[in-house]
Amino acid sequence: MTPFKLTEELVTEIEQLIENQRDTDLVALMEDMHYADVAEIIDELDEDEATYIIKLLESDKTSEVLTELDDDVREAILGNLSAKEIAEELGELDTDDAADIVGELPNDIIQEVISEIMDREHARDIVDLLRYDEYTAGGLMAKELVKVKEDWNVLTCVKEMRAQAENVTRVHSIYVVDADDKLMGRLSLKDLLTTSTTTHIKDIYIPKVDRVGVNEKPEEVAKIMSKYDLEAIPVVDEIGRLVGRITIDDIVDVIKEEADKDYQMAAGISQDVEAHDSIWKLTRARLPWLIIGMFGGIGAASIINSFQAVMSEFPILLIFVPLIQATAGNVGVQSSAIMVQGLANDTVKGEIINRLLKEFALGLINGAVIAVIVLLISHFAFQTSYLISATLCIALVTVIIIAALIGTFIPVFLDARGIDPAVATGPFITTGNDIFGILIYFSIAKVVLGI
Amino acid sequence: MTPFKLTEELVTEIEQLIENQRDTDLVALMEDMHYADVAEIIDELDEDEATYIIKLLESDKTSEVLTELDDDVREAILGNLSAKEIAEELGELDTDDAADIVGELPNDIIQEVISEIMDREHARDIVDLLRYDEYTAGGLMAKELVKVKEDWNVLTCVKEMRAQAENVTRVHSIYVVDADDKLMGRLSLKDLLTTSTTTHIKDIYIPKVDRVGVNEKPEEVAKIMSKYDLEAIPVVDEIGRLVGRITIDDIVDVIKEEADKDYQMAAGISQDVEAHDSIWKLTRARLPWLIIGMFGGIGAASIINSFQAVMSEFPILLIFVPLIQATAGNVGVQSSAIMVQGLANDTVKGEIINRLLKEFALGLINGAVIAVIVLLISHFAFQTSYLISATLCIALVTVIIIAALIGTFIPVFLDARGIDPAVATGPFITTGNDIFGILIYFSIAKVVLGI
Repeated sequence: MTPFKLTEELVTEIEQLIENQRDTDLVALMEDMHYADVAEIIDELDEDEATYIIKLLESDKTSEVLTELDDDVREAILGNLSAKEIAEELGELDTDDAADIVGELPNDIIQEVISEIMDREHARDIVDLLRYDEYTAGGLMAKELVKVKEDWNVLTCVKEMRAQAENVTRVHSIYVVDADDKLMGRLSLKDLLTTSTTTHIKDIYIPKVDRVGVNEKPEEVAKIMSKYDLEAIPVVDEIGRLVGRITIDDIVDVIKEEADKDYQMAAGISQDVEAHDSIWKLTRARLPWLIIGMFGGIGAASIINSFQAVMSEFPILLIFVPLIQATAGNVGVQSSAIMVQGLANDTVKGEIINRLLKEFALGLINGAVIAVIVLLISHFAFQTSYLISATLCIALVTVIIIAALIGTFIPVFLDARGIDPAVATGPFITTGNDIFGILIYFSIAKVVLGI
Repeated sequence: MTPFKLTEELVTEIEQLIENQRDTDLVALMEDMHYADVAEIIDELDEDEATYIIKLLESDKTSEVLTELDDDVREAILGNLSAKEIAEELGELDTDDAADIVGELPNDIIQEVISEIMDREHARDIVDLLRYDEYTAGGLMAKELVKVKEDWNVLTCVKEMRAQAENVTRVHSIYVVDADDKLMGRLSLKDLLTTSTTTHIKDIYIPKVDRVGVNEKPEEVAKIMSKYDLEAIPVVDEIGRLVGRITIDDIVDVIKEEADKDYQMAAGISQDVEAHDSIWKLTRARLPWLIIGMFGGIGAASIINSFQAVMSEFPILLIFVPLIQATAGNVGVQSSAIMVQGLANDTVKGEIINRLLKEFALGLINGAVIAVIVLLISHFAFQTSYLISATLCIALVTVIIIAALIGTFIPVFLDARGIDPAVATGPFITTGNDIFGILIYFSIAKVVLGI
């Protein structure tokens, strides 16, 4: 098996086959492809071509293809399908993926689509899932799972499991429930492979089983599953009844989305965008932070402008403004990034005052090193006077310490107030520190130079 | 089951139990804890206390605890254990985790530790794994897997599997090999649950199975497993023989480490650090980028200094230097972040020239908006002359476009040369754009103001 590679030749070939309606060749070409590969191809096609492929191939493949597509591409394709065709696709999907797609459909066709789903239990499960908020464990979970009652014996259990396993793509654990469907524990598949069939379930199940509540946040579920190395976790409702199951592949997506979001926030991109998005979407994501940064720059201009006496008497000070600004920004970003990551990974422990003292010490060390280098360079390369050099060095050390403290404090402050600390990184902290840095620089200049 | 919560009270209680050597109470307290929770507690203890706990508890738990600890904590604890004690811990671990620990041991004790491992096959597997580079599929994989020969029938297969499954914590797929151990395909557990025992393996196995080579990079393995929603992937050597298996929990770690690394690089942190690391380690991670930023600032100072005529005739221009600099930095970080993410997620397609044209258009739009706002503010708030305002606006648009082009081009350039494009974000691009931005600003001033 050679790995799939998306090439322009392949896309052109498929486009020509579609144009000439050579269905048999298309099916022959694509039937052995993995759905994730078909999705990559569809991303390269226009809407009509994409719809053609979705209608042509079997729905057991195209349903999975649909789940892999970008939201806007999927929406466009589904707009070209009848309610019956959409229902066929949904019938092939696990309930969690099906519910995600139904959640994106226009309200007026949801009822019709649901009523066209052949398997009524499947349809009911999908409707059940629709009532959970997308950003909760309930919104992530699927209804497909294998569960057995504690008062069964292994023989009944195996029989029932065979029936249930038909609908479950991947069996991870067998969950044990009581008569009221309350989650009691689990049986591992391995135990099942190695246990005699005459034993009773209540004598062999493991009563300890990790679980999450339906209202738990996805990030929290991700933390629990990755901390405890779980491949699936059962979801229980408010009174402990087993209502669904979250598998690790969904969590991998959550982890990647979280990481992408934090990265973009640190880079001053205010919504989820990708390189291939439209110029308009990219502008909406980027312009807000640029405007905030711009007001920061205007603020800095006002501050410098207010130190007219310093400017006119010691214009040499102005050439070091970029140095002060860059240093303040870099230190602020470093400190805040470490805190944001620490908060995300739960590795920030102890009192905030200890963190700040540590940052103070760090700022002092880094500041001292930078100040000594700048002292030498300014003296020899720019022939600055001792007072100017002193101003510069004192300002650098002060700016580095204060930027580090601000960068550390703000994320903790936001986190304590329930705001995602990741917004505190990037342009936000840079802009704030620019203004602080310049204010500190000129204030110190005033004192040291006695203006 | 209530979720575990690490509290100061709990840590104090455990410290006191250790001090008073109340072993029975300690065991009673910790035996039902998950190993990941015990690891969190150990992170809070000093070296002697940590070693005490590791020696006290059963090695089937402490071995897993060891894998969860920070490298330096683990190294300290292992330094207090005898070769025999370390071998006992290794005996309980899967081969991949055991090999990771052996790889960290001092060279002079490795041989003794290995010779103390009771299960000789386990020891051989660990030694086999040691020869793979840590940053390859071979370095990630474990030897534990369930494999069957294609010429067996299902009855033999089930018998053999039961024996093999004893050593495999989680059975994902049953791999099918030929007489030379070459990977031929797989059997799913589900198939096994629903197939009669008289069938022959070669008649029922699925010949298509995703696989990776031993030398594949971890990021590549992560991409394949997450694209195809795999929970385990077999690893083959250069001639296609099945040599190991990588499971999704290891890949979750790879994805998180990659994301953390990229995030830290974007924030100008040059090595993997956490909030609780020592001041010395944090300084080493942070100072290099600060020094690079400092040289950027010095470079900017030289440039401004070289425009003496502009400075003395139009000092007002200097108050807008922070605005130019912040804008250049923010645009550069945004553009590079989008490219770095696009390259990491394989969503950057098509010619680089098209990407640059798109960034040019984006820069033009963003630049125009920013320029109009700045024009109004500078005119009304700072009473700048029309020529100064014109200089500022032309410079802003130019800087935004050029910063966007540089931010887009550099990551693509680095990626094409096999360098991780993530180094191009953060302080690197900010520093470069600071200098470019200021150079452009003063050059435009010279032309527009006719100095």
